[in-house]
Amino acid sequence: MAKEIERKVLVNSRHPTFSKLMETNYSKIRQGNIMSSPTGVVRVRVEDGFASLAIKGVTTGISRNEYEYEIPIPDAEQLLADMCSKVIEKNRYLYPLRDGLVAEVDVFPQIDLCIAEVELPSEETEFEKPEWFTEEVSHDPQYFNNNIAKRI
Amino acid sequence: MAKEIERKVLVNSRHPTFSKLMETNYSKIRQGNIMSSPTGVVRVRVEDGFASLAIKGVTTGISRNEYEYEIPIPDAEQLLADMCSKVIEKNRYLYPLRDGLVAEVDVFPQIDLCIAEVELPSEETEFEKPEWFTEEVSHDPQYFNNNIAKRI
Repeated sequence: MAKEIERKVLVNSRHPTFSKLMETNYSKIRQGNIMSSPTGVVRVRVEDGFASLAIKGVTTGISRNEYEYEIPIPDAEQLLADMCSKVIEKNRYLYPLRDGLVAEVDVFPQIDLCIAEVELPSEETEFEKPEWFTEEVSHDPQYFNNNIAKRI
Repeated sequence: MAKEIERKVLVNSRHPTFSKLMETNYSKIRQGNIMSSPTGVVRVRVEDGFASLAIKGVTTGISRNEYEYEIPIPDAEQLLADMCSKVIEKNRYLYPLRDGLVAEVDVFPQIDLCIAEVELPSEETEFEKPEWFTEEVSHDPQYFNNNIAKRI
């Protein structure tokens, strides 16, 4: 079990730094929710030759419990096909920040949405936002993964 | 992914063979449903030094898709504590049948219930019921695991 401590920020996709980032390598992620409830979500993901099953608990502040396990890719594909009503695609770009932190910049090609996520070692850790990061949406329900899924 | 093909039968707990079986070794199982929905169930189980996470699809006839993965025992314990509203205990005894088949005889100490489950290689496989097996309940919703959990 790990603690996932994460902040989410919208980005200015017209900023030159964003455009440059879009020319770099990215991971193609396909994921779906097998089940979700008020207590959390069970998610399957396939990403560049790696597949995982994750159970995520309720978010409290910017933290939640996360249990993630590697599973065989054919299992993940079958779970996506059989048990997920929607498959979310996202292209994930990595953008290094100061202090060894990294922003995961997710572009959702199915909907008009880009979000940067920054995993932090503690809830108190601050990070310096680059100027092309705009509004923080960590606490905005419309950007919870469950609700993003509903837009697809 | 595996196909779970299983028949469930009630047993006569006053039969001498049952009493003898109760003197043999058994596995102590503790399990809980992390989530369940009309499409299936996500279950965590701890059993004699082994823990697993399973996703089970909808039962069609006596079959359903099953995805099961070993996970670390501390994770399973935490999932039981944090994400399962109920923890079901069952003591599992093994009773060999003919043709290499094995009945798993589950005794639920929290409720007055014993059930024998026989996993079969195909839906068509027949098995010879010992005389202390009574009514088949494979298709009776009150013996679906989800509904057994509600009695605890």
